[in-house]
Amino acid sequence: MASQHQNGGRSPELRHDPVTNRWVIFSPVRAKRPTDFKSKNPQNPNPNPNNNSLCPFCIGNEHECAPEIFRVPPDLNDPNWKLRVIENLYPALSRNLECPCEEKQGMEFPGRVIGGFGFHDVVIENPIHSVQLSDMEPREIGEVFLAHKKRIQQIMSVQSIKYVQVFKNHGASAGASMSHSHSQILALPVIPSSVSARLEGMKEHFEKTGKCSLCEVRAKELLIDESSHFISIVPFAATFPFEIWIIPRVHSSHFHELDFEKMVDLGGLLKLMLRKISLQLNNPPFNFMIQTSPVQVKESESCYTHWFLQIVPQLSGVGGFEIGTGCYINPVLPEDAAKVMREVNLPMQD
Amino acid sequence: MASQHQNGGRSPELRHDPVTNRWVIFSPVRAKRPTDFKSKNPQNPNPNPNNNSLCPFCIGNEHECAPEIFRVPPDLNDPNWKLRVIENLYPALSRNLECPCEEKQGMEFPGRVIGGFGFHDVVIENPIHSVQLSDMEPREIGEVFLAHKKRIQQIMSVQSIKYVQVFKNHGASAGASMSHSHSQILALPVIPSSVSARLEGMKEHFEKTGKCSLCEVRAKELLIDESSHFISIVPFAATFPFEIWIIPRVHSSHFHELDFEKMVDLGGLLKLMLRKISLQLNNPPFNFMIQTSPVQVKESESCYTHWFLQIVPQLSGVGGFEIGTGCYINPVLPEDAAKVMREVNLPMQD
Repeated sequence: MASQHQNGGRSPELRHDPVTNRWVIFSPVRAKRPTDFKSKNPQNPNPNPNNNSLCPFCIGNEHECAPEIFRVPPDLNDPNWKLRVIENLYPALSRNLECPCEEKQGMEFPGRVIGGFGFHDVVIENPIHSVQLSDMEPREIGEVFLAHKKRIQQIMSVQSIKYVQVFKNHGASAGASMSHSHSQILALPVIPSSVSARLEGMKEHFEKTGKCSLCEVRAKELLIDESSHFISIVPFAATFPFEIWIIPRVHSSHFHELDFEKMVDLGGLLKLMLRKISLQLNNPPFNFMIQTSPVQVKESESCYTHWFLQIVPQLSGVGGFEIGTGCYINPVLPEDAAKVMREVNLPMQD
Repeated sequence: MASQHQNGGRSPELRHDPVTNRWVIFSPVRAKRPTDFKSKNPQNPNPNPNNNSLCPFCIGNEHECAPEIFRVPPDLNDPNWKLRVIENLYPALSRNLECPCEEKQGMEFPGRVIGGFGFHDVVIENPIHSVQLSDMEPREIGEVFLAHKKRIQQIMSVQSIKYVQVFKNHGASAGASMSHSHSQILALPVIPSSVSARLEGMKEHFEKTGKCSLCEVRAKELLIDESSHFISIVPFAATFPFEIWIIPRVHSSHFHELDFEKMVDLGGLLKLMLRKISLQLNNPPFNFMIQTSPVQVKESESCYTHWFLQIVPQLSGVGGFEIGTGCYINPVLPEDAAKVMREVNLPMQD
């Protein structure tokens, strides 16, 4: 959803450099011409937030979108949809490439290339332009999660897909190019580096202690709120100020194992966290990510892999230190952030 | 250099969470009160760029800075300094903690904590407020690198320091809180995750091919410019659009092994790259990082560790996908970016 220009018909690809030791997606379809790629201030997405004739995600403008995958309710002839799952008009990866992806030779360069096969979908969370996720009822948010689950299960059947990332960008500086409430699903033919690092760290902890690192999280000073099936905390080593994790109480490797009742419960706790962030931090841009496990998890891995939902308010940018080292400087201690979030006087439900 | 407020006398610490599997620096001295930590637009640093009475980095305002470590020329009684190395007034890590750092217990939480011992220094690159690094002569830029080298060599003698990151933030959205030209040196008691990942990747490549991954870089379509001792390229799997690496031709693990003649040569090539970026990309904010090796490199590691200087123009923010996966989406193919940079008609020297 990043750009308004097409750039030839070049296919995306994934490249891996031994020096950085991670995969990068090259997606020329999302670019302007390289020479147009000049610095500018981020603009507000959709400058006319109440003029739905300009927003392709608004009800009635379905024809301006990329193809629909499914809608809720499922009847295509019912114009009163509650949410729609569509293809991304500017997908980072292409569903039309041949799979499984073949490894190509890097141009006289020590590196690996594979074709950019994958899926990049958008979930339009509400038909109405001005309704944000945190305005919706827990049950409606649960239905958004149910759409994520359903789409993940469809994608999982494609054998070359290794990992599916669900994420939401809210606000221009958090990467949202459309202000109409939506989330995205990006399915990859590789396991990305942060996910491998997470599995490695959880494995090490399990081997040392015999325990899952997220089942163990019970420190009172980091707790914000609890629901029937989830807890919300500021993680002990939060990368970003006021970062929040919502963790299922019961051990589970995959988000898509969740049933609808628990999704509604999750919706209620997510809504509460988003409202607390908005109140205490002046309505900042934010991202949330469903941090699940790779599609294939071995029996031996399932005892230490535990999914969670990560919320990151965008309060500060990154500088050269963070880009260079991958080590972040957080000026707010997690126990202080948790206290600030606990102290907001908001009920769990509207 | 992030903030104008002190927050009690709390010491910094480093925390490691098994789930994220990386170290985070907690630096309460850099914070406002947590409740003041609200979202706002980034402001221009130093709103009066020509009013040097307000800038502590300007010549004549030395008394407003944190303690000086050394200056060039070295005579403290000579007011006409060319550059100064000072302590950071808001250091991310503290040089006053006891070292070696002791590992503490994480508060009923599966994680590790060590005291935030380290060094965080600032190199004021020029006495004059309006002079940017790219305005300076190659020889003067060489002297900035020489100051980095000298300070690294001083810090290296402290046994608990494992890695030293030199970096520069230029422009508010690249993390610079002061517009007066400066770079920073942050010395850590741990090896950060991106550095470990880099070593791991370069090692794997060496074991597979018997070659250093940066000695091998010779692809014409990625080359931008060459000097006597360095080449500049867009890396094969550039994480960011128009990212540039300046690589020494001769294999070397550490930046601080460089002699002054080569530093002047590096200064000339860096100046050219910064001017090309400014011209082709509309003077964007940028970061550069000296990607060197950990202080201690074993004999067996020295054959595949090769330092380089990484330049990243800040052209786009990150969204939930990048935060969640560590995988970046780059809309500009490296060979296209290199072509754009090759095509600027600028001589190597002024």
